[in-house]
Amino acid sequence: MAQVAVIVGSDSDLPVVKGTVEILEEFGVAYELTIASAHRTPKRAMDLAMTAEERGVDVIIAAAGAAAHLPGFLAAFTTVPVIGLPIRSGALEGVDALYSMAQMPSGIPVATVGINNAKNAALLAVAILGVVDEELRTKLKEYRKRQACALNDRAVHLEEVGLRAYLAEKEKEKEKGG
Amino acid sequence: MAQVAVIVGSDSDLPVVKGTVEILEEFGVAYELTIASAHRTPKRAMDLAMTAEERGVDVIIAAAGAAAHLPGFLAAFTTVPVIGLPIRSGALEGVDALYSMAQMPSGIPVATVGINNAKNAALLAVAILGVVDEELRTKLKEYRKRQACALNDRAVHLEEVGLRAYLAEKEKEKEKGG
Amino acid sequence: MAQVAVIVGSDSDLPVVKGTVEILEEFGVAYELTIASAHRTPKRAMDLAMTAEERGVDVIIAAAGAAAHLPGFLAAFTTVPVIGLPIRSGALEGVDALYSMAQMPSGIPVATVGINNAKNAALLAVAILGVVDEELRTKLKEYRKRQACALNDRAVHLEEVGLRAYLAEKEKEKEKGG
Amino acid sequence: MAQVAVIVGSDSDLPVVKGTVEILEEFGVAYELTIASAHRTPKRAMDLAMTAEERGVDVIIAAAGAAAHLPGFLAAFTTVPVIGLPIRSGALEGVDALYSMAQMPSGIPVATVGINNAKNAALLAVAILGVVDEELRTKLKEYRKRQACALNDRAVHLEEVGLRAYLAEKEKEKEKGG
Amino acid sequence: MAQVAVIVGSDSDLPVVKGTVEILEEFGVAYELTIASAHRTPKRAMDLAMTAEERGVDVIIAAAGAAAHLPGFLAAFTTVPVIGLPIRSGALEGVDALYSMAQMPSGIPVATVGINNAKNAALLAVAILGVVDEELRTKLKEYRKRQACALNDRAVHLEEVGLRAYLAEKEKEKEKGG
Amino acid sequence: MAQVAVIVGSDSDLPVVKGTVEILEEFGVAYELTIASAHRTPKRAMDLAMTAEERGVDVIIAAAGAAAHLPGFLAAFTTVPVIGLPIRSGALEGVDALYSMAQMPSGIPVATVGINNAKNAALLAVAILGVVDEELRTKLKEYRKRQACALNDRAVHLEEVGLRAYLAEKEKEKEKGG
Amino acid sequence: MAQVAVIVGSDSDLPVVKGTVEILEEFGVAYELTIASAHRTPKRAMDLAMTAEERGVDVIIAAAGAAAHLPGFLAAFTTVPVIGLPIRSGALEGVDALYSMAQMPSGIPVATVGINNAKNAALLAVAILGVVDEELRTKLKEYRKRQACALNDRAVHLEEVGLRAYLAEKEKEKEKGG
Amino acid sequence: MAQVAVIVGSDSDLPVVKGTVEILEEFGVAYELTIASAHRTPKRAMDLAMTAEERGVDVIIAAAGAAAHLPGFLAAFTTVPVIGLPIRSGALEGVDALYSMAQMPSGIPVATVGINNAKNAALLAVAILGVVDEELRTKLKEYRKRQACALNDRAVHLEEVGLRAYLAEKEKEKEKGG
Repeated sequence: MAQVAVIVGSDSDLPVVKGTVEILEEFGVAYELTIASAHRTPKRAMDLAMTAEERGVDVIIAAAGAAAHLPGFLAAFTTVPVIGLPIRSGALEGVDALYSMAQMPSGIPVATVGINNAKNAALLAVAILGVVDEELRTKLKEYRKRQACALNDRAVHLEEVGLRAYLAEKEKEKEKGG
Repeated sequence: MAQVAVIVGSDSDLPVVKGTVEILEEFGVAYELTIASAHRTPKRAMDLAMTAEERGVDVIIAAAGAAAHLPGFLAAFTTVPVIGLPIRSGALEGVDALYSMAQMPSGIPVATVGINNAKNAALLAVAILGVVDEELRTKLKEYRKRQACALNDRAVHLEEVGLRAYLAEKEKEKEKGG
Repeated sequence: MAQVAVIVGSDSDLPVVKGTVEILEEFGVAYELTIASAHRTPKRAMDLAMTAEERGVDVIIAAAGAAAHLPGFLAAFTTVPVIGLPIRSGALEGVDALYSMAQMPSGIPVATVGINNAKNAALLAVAILGVVDEELRTKLKEYRKRQACALNDRAVHLEEVGLRAYLAEKEKEKEKGG
Repeated sequence: MAQVAVIVGSDSDLPVVKGTVEILEEFGVAYELTIASAHRTPKRAMDLAMTAEERGVDVIIAAAGAAAHLPGFLAAFTTVPVIGLPIRSGALEGVDALYSMAQMPSGIPVATVGINNAKNAALLAVAILGVVDEELRTKLKEYRKRQACALNDRAVHLEEVGLRAYLAEKEKEKEKGG
Repeated sequence: MAQVAVIVGSDSDLPVVKGTVEILEEFGVAYELTIASAHRTPKRAMDLAMTAEERGVDVIIAAAGAAAHLPGFLAAFTTVPVIGLPIRSGALEGVDALYSMAQMPSGIPVATVGINNAKNAALLAVAILGVVDEELRTKLKEYRKRQACALNDRAVHLEEVGLRAYLAEKEKEKEKGG
Repeated sequence: MAQVAVIVGSDSDLPVVKGTVEILEEFGVAYELTIASAHRTPKRAMDLAMTAEERGVDVIIAAAGAAAHLPGFLAAFTTVPVIGLPIRSGALEGVDALYSMAQMPSGIPVATVGINNAKNAALLAVAILGVVDEELRTKLKEYRKRQACALNDRAVHLEEVGLRAYLAEKEKEKEKGG
Repeated sequence: MAQVAVIVGSDSDLPVVKGTVEILEEFGVAYELTIASAHRTPKRAMDLAMTAEERGVDVIIAAAGAAAHLPGFLAAFTTVPVIGLPIRSGALEGVDALYSMAQMPSGIPVATVGINNAKNAALLAVAILGVVDEELRTKLKEYRKRQACALNDRAVHLEEVGLRAYLAEKEKEKEKGG
Repeated sequence: MAQVAVIVGSDSDLPVVKGTVEILEEFGVAYELTIASAHRTPKRAMDLAMTAEERGVDVIIAAAGAAAHLPGFLAAFTTVPVIGLPIRSGALEGVDALYSMAQMPSGIPVATVGINNAKNAALLAVAILGVVDEELRTKLKEYRKRQACALNDRAVHLEEVGLRAYLAEKEKEKEKGG
């Protein structure tokens, strides 16, 4: 049974949403991932929202671009908290999606994170689940520590080798990775 | 039986939408006017959309501000053409509403008019109905002519009396009207 | 005789407008496609608008970028409903075109769709024609169903194979297609 | 002991935040309300964040305008979920605050709601608390129902009395209220 | 015979355009002032543009708000240089008008000045006429000098009386003027 | 002796400004082209402006990106009309340059054209010179006609060969050209 | 002899700049205040910049609205650090001024503060002077402490009296003050 | 001992910040360069700010993208002047970072330079240090002169060889360089 439902408005959003899923997996949070459009498959989207609670879903993460009504649509049919992840796409580059999620009418909130910030959508879900799940909160603290350590290590390394060597190393890594 | 359904997301939109209704009345187009929110009363909104065709509605005009999902929401549940009227409200002054209506996903269009341009929503509905209603199209042509004549009259008057006198007269009218 | 006139302001808009034409063809809607600029060939544009009705045109779709006056220009010379398709181009990426179409003055509306959303321009035309063309409306409903089914199929497939396999398959398709 | 900490960056934000507090009171959620600035009293803000968990705080709501770093600042020092409420102020009317909250770096999310949407900040907190508090979720469902009923009542009333009478009544109420 | 034609898209633009006319009068430039809408009275606007040259018009100043197609429309029908004055109005506060004028397609320029900057529209016309009218250019230089002197006088006065006294004096003047 | 001075703020603007120069050459307008920065070589820029009139320059075209003060700077030191050409560059893509040119203070106008619209800067200069140069105005009319014919020819060809063939031909041309 | 030169582009900027002057006086920093326009009195502005160093000026604060070239103009003629204070004015509400100051070309920086944030312009000047003036830095630390204490006092008071009493008190103060 | 501390919020900002470091080296200004995040390593960032003065740091340059709280965060913990360098990144292209730095609350300024304008951050630091360091100011004047000469040389060369040859040469250089 999934604790978090990750729903995308289109399968073109999936490459971004991969970052969400990876965090959920890293934290061992059970999730389901599917596609549903507020406009093209509204009944499916409605069903997913209306049955979320009985399916055991505690948090919904909805990703969409452009008009990006999906998270607001789902929020209208459930009291499970909905996190909106605006996808960068089209001529407005996700500003339309950001506005459409954040500017929900009084009464039905969507917890909006940054444009294409897939990790933050998952980390917010983890923090919400952590309100009562001591273990998850502990994991989140450890994640934060690892994150801080990694950054500190990079800082120390930069101070040791200097800017030019550091950039040269990064360049090399990129070549390998790419 | 109403040919045009005018639906607002909130009763705070009604003062603007008055301009829509006045045009419909001027053209003798039967209309219904009601309130339904995509987020606060989604089932009501859904019903209005799903039964629109069988109620004889040929065009829907939906007005909403901020996230302004209403016209897109209605369009998802009907094939009747939906005109979106973005309402100026809140910190983003209706730009959010304009984006949310115009930037609908491929597959489900909303015919968007200008922010707070209530008259144009109605005139677009009249033009759409005029595709097969000869009488209505004739009325639209006459409306256009009257509109042009009124503007021409103002132009002639301005040329005759000059700018200062013209502005003084307008000022006086405003004082009376206000 | 064409029911829909598709007019572009520049031949650089044609690759986008292909999406409009494909939908019209899919629905069996007779259309004409031509180029006319509100500024470079204003008389041609004016003629196209003024004779639209007698040529049997029921809906005009006008695509333009930047200042994008074309749909408003055409609307000034006809009572046939005009759909505006803002083209993404130049430094403002189509926001200028969107504003220029949506923000038409009171009295002369343009039914604006999303930036570069060529399909929606056509689907809106189909919905408008569907007001009196029962067959076309039926086709539109079937199109919507197919669209929903395709999305649902993708959703089911995603749920079955999982995110990584799904993305790998898409990647492969792209390679083939590209 | 407070379950929700409401923190404002400046006492000029308090008139807006009143809407947050009223919802929390309506739901019987214990809250604390105080002022702390990420820039003018950073140590105080840091302390509030670092001791939040041990004080029993489950959710933080942070309101700020302009640069609006407060929610992100607090989020950096705690794993308690932080809701950001962008305040409309200054020349950018809250767009700066919205961007500053939503666009947090990967790793430290802020759950952003709409500009000046004080109620939604509280309702989101309630939804988050409702993940494990059955009673609160039930209250939220009842709130939603009352909200829907109120809107439906207004819709029915509008349909009965018509637009002009409805607007006249609203005008009267405003005069009384004002 | 008018050397400059000042054309507004709506009589609501006239209070702003007063600033244009006053400068033209100060410089003794013969002008005509009238109303014509690119959309509501397109033929009138077209005639004004097409006959501009034979009427002896050397420069056209066109003011419009929102979609603000007027200057571009006129420019399409004449080779007389057209100055566009974007009017601040509606939800987009003239940004729509600015974009619509400046972003004209390659081939048909509009010389755009600042939003509501009525004086600059006139001063630009004077500068253009001054290309061959020695007397006018001399007047423009004198205007510039007077303008500089007035500012210098204010600077000297500020330095003499100090900020508080200066502001107090301005406040008094405003009270008299208002 | 040059009639038009084309000044760029940086040599990185030259590839865009090539479009300006080509039009001036096509019309046989004598021009000078140089680089001067309002900030890096202000004295040079000042000299260019102050001696413009005595050098016989009738119109200045100034191109700049980002803060883009150049045209305004030049306009401050001369009464020769200054055309501002905003260059697309940097994170704001030329919107900063557009604002900086159009929004000049009352008293010192800059005739602003579209972002990167190099041709329009030149065509505006030609139109200004055409106010008293009958021959140049005639050339401008012929240019307009050729421009209209070329567009009409493309339209006729599109109508003849259809969209797909037309696009295929354009694709081929691009390959050759590229 | 003034250590800080405060220069405004127009006397309409003075009410905002009062906040700058008050801080400088509070810190006992000698300043001069005058008016000079980059466009209307460029020579005066140039002189002010070129003689700044010899007049003993260590920091320039320049305030301007709209195109707001003044700080950049001054910076072009001096190596004294220039702080830019964008003034909120006109249709773009100071966004134009912010861009025009921040987006200076590489080579000539302007230290830009927030729109209308007059105090911060002065506090930044104080911090810069504090680099070598131990006494001034000490004063700045004390200012910061007082600022923090004042905010903490308000926080304590809010916690004691509660939101409603606090807002009522503020309302009363405003009535007295207004 | 470093006079300037250059701090980046993420090592992805380093390629841009290279431009800052190069200027500091060119001027012989001792600097330290490290990474610290306001959100991921807030304690490290806080320490860097709080010990800056005792470490002998006279100016801090902080670079960050998106929410970009880093410079404001540092400024909250020190009275050393902080220069903010907004990094272009993500969907908002650095506009979010620019707003977040410039729009700091009254009391804690950040000296903001242009998006990605790494050189200007360093040159501003040099100008600030130059307030009391005569030698550095002299170097800055020489830098300005070299900069002006280089630009003038390019101008002279352009005037000599003409546009086409000049562009051809630049093209060649790019090929070599690339």
